[in-house]
Amino acid sequence: MDVGGTKIAAGVITPQGEALSRVRYPTSSSPEILLSTLVRAINEVREGFEVGGVCLSVPGFVSERENRVVYSPNLHAVEGIPLKEVLEPRIGLPLTVENDANAAAWGELRFGLGREVEHLVMVTLGTGIGGGVISHGILLRGAQGAAGELGHVTVLPDGPRCACGNRGCLEVMASGTSIGRRAREVAARYPGSALAELAMEREIVGEDVSRLAAAGDEGALAVLEETGRWLGIGLASFVNVFNPEVVAIGGGAVDAGEPLLGPAREEVRLRARPPSRDLVVVKGATLGPESGMFGAAALARDPKTGRYILDEA
Amino acid sequence: MDVGGTKIAAGVITPQGEALSRVRYPTSSSPEILLSTLVRAINEVREGFEVGGVCLSVPGFVSERENRVVYSPNLHAVEGIPLKEVLEPRIGLPLTVENDANAAAWGELRFGLGREVEHLVMVTLGTGIGGGVISHGILLRGAQGAAGELGHVTVLPDGPRCACGNRGCLEVMASGTSIGRRAREVAARYPGSALAELAMEREIVGEDVSRLAAAGDEGALAVLEETGRWLGIGLASFVNVFNPEVVAIGGGAVDAGEPLLGPAREEVRLRARPPSRDLVVVKGATLGPESGMFGAAALARDPKTGRYILDEA
Repeated sequence: MDVGGTKIAAGVITPQGEALSRVRYPTSSSPEILLSTLVRAINEVREGFEVGGVCLSVPGFVSERENRVVYSPNLHAVEGIPLKEVLEPRIGLPLTVENDANAAAWGELRFGLGREVEHLVMVTLGTGIGGGVISHGILLRGAQGAAGELGHVTVLPDGPRCACGNRGCLEVMASGTSIGRRAREVAARYPGSALAELAMEREIVGEDVSRLAAAGDEGALAVLEETGRWLGIGLASFVNVFNPEVVAIGGGAVDAGEPLLGPAREEVRLRARPPSRDLVVVKGATLGPESGMFGAAALARDPKTGRYILDEA
Repeated sequence: MDVGGTKIAAGVITPQGEALSRVRYPTSSSPEILLSTLVRAINEVREGFEVGGVCLSVPGFVSERENRVVYSPNLHAVEGIPLKEVLEPRIGLPLTVENDANAAAWGELRFGLGREVEHLVMVTLGTGIGGGVISHGILLRGAQGAAGELGHVTVLPDGPRCACGNRGCLEVMASGTSIGRRAREVAARYPGSALAELAMEREIVGEDVSRLAAAGDEGALAVLEETGRWLGIGLASFVNVFNPEVVAIGGGAVDAGEPLLGPAREEVRLRARPPSRDLVVVKGATLGPESGMFGAAALARDPKTGRYILDEA
């Protein structure tokens, strides 16, 4: 189950990654309503199937030991609630909780780009930038469940202020949100472009840029190129740090495709070291908006240890 | 055994981290002489003790599966030699090979700062910057043994050219070598300082700056402050990525102490996110120049899997 800031998506997923059933509900900001909706969604979706366990993918830091969401700026309703203790009696199934980008990483590993690998870095480009890292077949959670904050690696020490308070985080330079902001700056340099014309009419968002770039607009392409280069600066560091086989780029902004990913790959080629640089494949994630749900399903299969060795899964 | 660019240090180390014997030899650039010296050192140091295995700590990328040094800019003599196959018959003991910063990280975990933890980041400040990461009690080697290249994370995309070819790596901004280079720049801003006077006489090296700073020279202190800030920008990113309990700073440059580490901690406080920021302890490593030898000894105890779970060690 993916519990997002706006919607809840639940599915019954086989070990082979097939979705046997799906339900969707809007997210509520009321903890009571949210908990009831979770219970209802689980009970609806499981009807007629033999289900072994549930994992909730949530946007926020999850304490591994307590299965409790410590901090969730986009989903305050779940903060501090002992979800395992509260929900298990109401659904009669073992339940775990996982950070959404971690779940997405696990989903790509088991059902997407990383099926044959043990070392995968997932970066999700949306309103912010999330990250999940699998190394030696193990999901890296860190001491408090707060590892993998790849969006908050500093790429420009005196850069713009990030939502986290730091300056020049990868998130503020390369998220979906940054594409909209950059579009307004770049429009001025390409006065004849469709991007510049749109910028005079209304606020530009990431989707506008992807659409205009797909139609070949040079202003929009310049925005994606610049964003991709910043993304690549971050990715090159991750390649040097993790020596991964795959870097999977997910989130809505990846719909921009090659005009964004090409320049990112070029920065990796320029900045990362051999042999890591020559091994790694940087690609758009395959599971799309359902990666959290599929990843959570795969993670639900080992609710006890919180460590997931590929061979055992 | 620590096989460095200039010297070889071998020791017989107990499971509790006590050195029962030690020998030292200079490193040779001839592969034949180097191999003979390794055999001689091992046979000398083990005499009279019951030894179960040997691990070589080397500066370079080590292929985990082959126990072969893939790439070693500071010790070309060992590159490509199948050390395990060549040395085992000559010493009659199981042998493994490990990257020196990885070994140092493991040494700090088992015998130094990290004895009670499972999440530790080691950064070694010397001519370059090395790194080793332990997460969930596992040494992160990556797909090819090239993980943990923390010195080659980009902290200033348009910064000075690094030895690796990239611009603005942490290594070029905060290594021991960078301290000497920065000293010449800073001396001009502190014309009355002892640093400025020394700069007129001869080339300044890192040790000079540490010495002058210890005597309170404001020029030297400014050099360490600036270097520490750059170091801290990198550390803050590692804290966000790994959520570690301990960041251990080793290598010769850490002799500079608080004038270097204080500003680094301050940047971590400013840039890293809670809860990681509030948990982590940033400290000078305790094993000093022998961390590679002690780490290798600890690693020698599990030569087979290449994975080291704390509870089993």
